[in-house]
Amino acid sequence: MDGLIALAAPDMARVDGLIREHMDSPVPVIPALADHLIAGSAKRLRPLLTVAAARLAGGRDDACLKLAAAVEFIHTATLLHDDVVDSSQLRRGRVAAHLIWGAPSSVLVGDFLFARAFELMVAAGSMPALEILARASRVIAEGEVLQLTRSHDMHLSQELYLEIIRAKTAELFAAAAEAGAISAGASPDRCRALRQYGQDLGVAFQLVDDALDYSGEAGTLGKNAGDDFREGKATLPLLLAIQRTGAAERSFWDRTVDRREQDEADFDRVRDLMRQTGALQSTLDLASDYAASAKAALQAFGPSPWRGPLEDLADFAVIRRS
Amino acid sequence: MDGLIALAAPDMARVDGLIREHMDSPVPVIPALADHLIAGSAKRLRPLLTVAAARLAGGRDDACLKLAAAVEFIHTATLLHDDVVDSSQLRRGRVAAHLIWGAPSSVLVGDFLFARAFELMVAAGSMPALEILARASRVIAEGEVLQLTRSHDMHLSQELYLEIIRAKTAELFAAAAEAGAISAGASPDRCRALRQYGQDLGVAFQLVDDALDYSGEAGTLGKNAGDDFREGKATLPLLLAIQRTGAAERSFWDRTVDRREQDEADFDRVRDLMRQTGALQSTLDLASDYAASAKAALQAFGPSPWRGPLEDLADFAVIRRS
Repeated sequence: MDGLIALAAPDMARVDGLIREHMDSPVPVIPALADHLIAGSAKRLRPLLTVAAARLAGGRDDACLKLAAAVEFIHTATLLHDDVVDSSQLRRGRVAAHLIWGAPSSVLVGDFLFARAFELMVAAGSMPALEILARASRVIAEGEVLQLTRSHDMHLSQELYLEIIRAKTAELFAAAAEAGAISAGASPDRCRALRQYGQDLGVAFQLVDDALDYSGEAGTLGKNAGDDFREGKATLPLLLAIQRTGAAERSFWDRTVDRREQDEADFDRVRDLMRQTGALQSTLDLASDYAASAKAALQAFGPSPWRGPLEDLADFAVIRRS
Repeated sequence: MDGLIALAAPDMARVDGLIREHMDSPVPVIPALADHLIAGSAKRLRPLLTVAAARLAGGRDDACLKLAAAVEFIHTATLLHDDVVDSSQLRRGRVAAHLIWGAPSSVLVGDFLFARAFELMVAAGSMPALEILARASRVIAEGEVLQLTRSHDMHLSQELYLEIIRAKTAELFAAAAEAGAISAGASPDRCRALRQYGQDLGVAFQLVDDALDYSGEAGTLGKNAGDDFREGKATLPLLLAIQRTGAAERSFWDRTVDRREQDEADFDRVRDLMRQTGALQSTLDLASDYAASAKAALQAFGPSPWRGPLEDLADFAVIRRS
């Protein structure tokens, strides 16, 4: 994704300025806590999508920049609340904010950032973009609650798993790209195409995230590998491994996942089972399908310096190691 | 406030319909948890302000109803998050939601309601009203964080105490009334007057709430009397009592408030000290001043069936027992 990052650098520098400016507050905990999380984000992937979508759709003005900053704020707010909800230890390679400032501050600073996001959208002045991002915020919350109530169900269907990640992850990718397109005055067809690109890209990203939790290394991941397994989270690699090993491993899964009684060797055994059953490979193959579908959505656009880098981003989603 | 409730009943029935409709979700926990809190709200004071402000300002259409429902959702979201942050046991006479569904669900359903509020505002179609309520949401979060970091400071100045309650409580009253006025197409002067009315009313309400925590009865309060004292919360009655008893009671306050080592007789002693020093009466007197200021703001309006009941509401804020 280096090509896209270089192309978007001037715009993203201004998005960064907006982010810094709007996370400020006379209450000192707020910028400190927000900065801890926001500074840890190297990629700024979602606001990058808003900017790139706007530019691909021919937008030349600054309308997309405030929306891009708003998208990053919505994302950061959901991360803060997620980490409280999941009692996560690490985020973006740093100690999770709630472990430093406490869960109450994380909840309230999340609310602050969420409200700031809407102030930025009002400043951007586009009611249709506001509608898209308000709906996305609601869908994300619904996806999080659904995940909360179903995340330990080892018989979760692949369909429901995909429904959850479409809501909790892909919806913001979709809305980020669509809001960018709308701010550029793109036609409804092109807005839909960029929404589709964002959604498929988001599903691919989450599938690869869920695979990396079994195949990645803590040093590059920015969180601990094996967290999902230790928490008994029903992600696709695990669901497929359980399904494919069948009765032969039932007592192993009952102990390690249902009752969450694990010892140190268990995670290595799970990695082995995933390789043997092809559960990891199937997850990555599905991610590749979504990435291909994302690229296909870009066919709605003619030649543009932005199209190739956005296609490359879809490839990057699948091949990345962190 | 019975007159206002009767006058607004047809509008509020429709606001209730919007609230019911928009708290629905295919994820079953969401309407269940939201209903637990929303059904416990008898007064619906903040959306009532939006409707009454719109009608007083001459608005005859439905524009204010969606904004009123949005205001109730913002309020409910902040209550859900507050109760998690404060580990409260009771809310509106019911067991706090996080004790039934868990803190994670309360956080996420709060996010859902907050997002729904913005969807309703988009549907209302007024960018100025959106701006007012987005800013209010941000100011409330700042006030909550400020309270979190300073709420146990027994040397908090009255000025900073008022700044906190203006942000965490009065801002939503102010925004609720102002958004109603704006939706009715009121002049900037009248929008400002209704904002002032809402803000002063909100401060009066919070001052009386803080007094009732020392003078009220659990049966009528909908929460436990003495909660603020047990949590060592620096509210005005306590700050004044500490200030006015001076060195004579220092060791009592050090033990019960700073170190929070309390036995059952301590709360009765605090009530006595508050009566002796006039700390409760001074808090209620200040509330009366704010209520009078709220009523004065209504002088911007000529004769209207809504003006008298809104004046009565300001009186009710001070004389109420729950």
